[in-house]
Amino acid sequence: MFEFKIIAECGRARAGELKTPHGVIETPVFMPVGTQAAVKAMSPAELEDIGAQIILGNTYHLYLRPGTDVIGAAGGLHGFMAWRRPILTDSGGFQVFSLSELRKITEDGVEFRSHIDGSRHFMTPELSMEIQRSLCSDIAMCFDECVKLPCAEDASRRAMERTLAWALRCREYFRTNEIQNQALFGIVQGALYSDQREECSKRLAGAGFDGYAIGGLSVGETHEEMYEILGVTDRTLPQDKPRYLMGVGMPENLTEGVARGVDMFDCVLPTRNGRNGNLLTKTGRFNIKNARFERDFTPIDEQCGCYACRNFTRAYIRHLYRSGEILAARLCSLHNLYFLLSLMKDARRSIIEGRYGEFRRKTLSSLGIAF
Amino acid sequence: MFEFKIIAECGRARAGELKTPHGVIETPVFMPVGTQAAVKAMSPAELEDIGAQIILGNTYHLYLRPGTDVIGAAGGLHGFMAWRRPILTDSGGFQVFSLSELRKITEDGVEFRSHIDGSRHFMTPELSMEIQRSLCSDIAMCFDECVKLPCAEDASRRAMERTLAWALRCREYFRTNEIQNQALFGIVQGALYSDQREECSKRLAGAGFDGYAIGGLSVGETHEEMYEILGVTDRTLPQDKPRYLMGVGMPENLTEGVARGVDMFDCVLPTRNGRNGNLLTKTGRFNIKNARFERDFTPIDEQCGCYACRNFTRAYIRHLYRSGEILAARLCSLHNLYFLLSLMKDARRSIIEGRYGEFRRKTLSSLGIAF
Repeated sequence: MFEFKIIAECGRARAGELKTPHGVIETPVFMPVGTQAAVKAMSPAELEDIGAQIILGNTYHLYLRPGTDVIGAAGGLHGFMAWRRPILTDSGGFQVFSLSELRKITEDGVEFRSHIDGSRHFMTPELSMEIQRSLCSDIAMCFDECVKLPCAEDASRRAMERTLAWALRCREYFRTNEIQNQALFGIVQGALYSDQREECSKRLAGAGFDGYAIGGLSVGETHEEMYEILGVTDRTLPQDKPRYLMGVGMPENLTEGVARGVDMFDCVLPTRNGRNGNLLTKTGRFNIKNARFERDFTPIDEQCGCYACRNFTRAYIRHLYRSGEILAARLCSLHNLYFLLSLMKDARRSIIEGRYGEFRRKTLSSLGIAF
Repeated sequence: MFEFKIIAECGRARAGELKTPHGVIETPVFMPVGTQAAVKAMSPAELEDIGAQIILGNTYHLYLRPGTDVIGAAGGLHGFMAWRRPILTDSGGFQVFSLSELRKITEDGVEFRSHIDGSRHFMTPELSMEIQRSLCSDIAMCFDECVKLPCAEDASRRAMERTLAWALRCREYFRTNEIQNQALFGIVQGALYSDQREECSKRLAGAGFDGYAIGGLSVGETHEEMYEILGVTDRTLPQDKPRYLMGVGMPENLTEGVARGVDMFDCVLPTRNGRNGNLLTKTGRFNIKNARFERDFTPIDEQCGCYACRNFTRAYIRHLYRSGEILAARLCSLHNLYFLLSLMKDARRSIIEGRYGEFRRKTLSSLGIAF
């Protein structure tokens, strides 16, 4: 039911096709995040319209609210939220470590308190698998331990070893329950230690997963540090499986990630920034609330073909923000998502046409980044 | 440029066509309210999609923010908010009396402080006309004085006399400036005093306006009191001009208003209620946040054809509300607007087909109201 096919390469960049039960995903791809069974401010129809091929759901949030029993009764996350295309669910690992309170980590799992009502829970690799199974996502992620940067070498190693042990338990859960309709991705950890990243990649690859994610990045390190780790994972992860760089959504990081063999990305930034009026364009970033847009009757981005840019001016959207209108968050979220989805679509075409180097240079230069 | 044609009557109910510079409005009609140049939570494309023929803009709000100079520079409210169909602007009268602080009323106009920044302003009939002129609405409203209920007879009469004097000044402004591309509606006041309502209607009609609005209702009176006043205005207002009942949006009030010769309605309730999870259906009202919907996998209204009902369940929308997702406000606003727009569309068809009595009986009975 799952198959990953690389249809073109250009340097280290790859254009691929990932077959899932809910359709084929063309890579490289950006995946909008639907934390609580909704991509914030967006409707499923709008997401389809702007070309979203796959979205994310968050195991931690959906487990706490509305609960997997409700989503299970709706026939899974697809039916519950009326999204027909593929879904990837994260493992809850990142949220357990970043959002919840009173964490106690043991070899078995993590005890935490809900950020919603303070209730006590114990998350294990097996429970994460069970939850993701009732969500019926197309791609499930292994439960991992995420460390904060900076992280001492031995602390990072301990978390990496635990992540590896938990990954094996997740894989075991999939085998025991003969799960065929979901893919399982392993997650590479190891902070900014190249040797740990290399070891983690190789040991995960040895165990065998449907795809590999690179976790624990975009958490405060420099871009150069991120790119160095991506160089390591590019060399050490299997070439014939999809690679997913978790939580990364800045256009320059996507462009450089693709240049280092990454196929998939997700991030809350386009929608979170959109709700705050921060906009991405081909000629730079700006905040629409700025007074200089008061009488600017041009669109957010002259070159953009999204609904917001085809119909509305900066002056109008600025007015919506200042007036607290929901439509402001809608239009800016839609625009930012359209921007990243289009960026990956254009990147893919350039890989197929053998000109990714040129595409990368032009993209970075238009973002004002030296190449 | 303006023409009102009654194409069918059934009892006192009328089906009409109101020609405006931005298109023909089929009456009876419900007009969604776009206070700050946006119908809350909705996009213009969605409004067109659910059949909104005309929307409202608020003179008071738009005058204070972004200011008529900005909207004027955008070529009027249509261009500013990217709405292609007709727009009606209110006069600011109701908001000056209900929202602002430190009012001082003289024969000349009203001094008030902005609810946004406390700045001091002086609104006159002429300034209201000037603002509505730069907004370029299809229909402008006369500046009127609104009283709170209960209101003593002499206080109501004073406000009515002032409303009449101001209406004549508004009409004079239109004549002097030879305004051809906007219609001007007079507003009937007189609290709950039938004799005052009758006198006001007749004196306005004698002066001659393009249409007549009934103001100062749905502000705390009983439905019976409202209907009695509508009986008076129905008898005393010109038959051949459109009648507009201001600020009324409950389905039973619309149904009874149409039965008393009203052609147009507006109200913030469908969107405000939508944002609070209060839903209108053909089988009654309910709040989607209620726990009994936790596992209710049916749509809001089985009989409804809106985007929300065609795609999502009560359980899902309840989850969106509890999770603070913007999509909740979107779906419920859209559903409630669709409900009222469809109600008026169905009412119109029944008038044309000579069965408004039956339609009225069925509608009120489905809403649980004795007829």
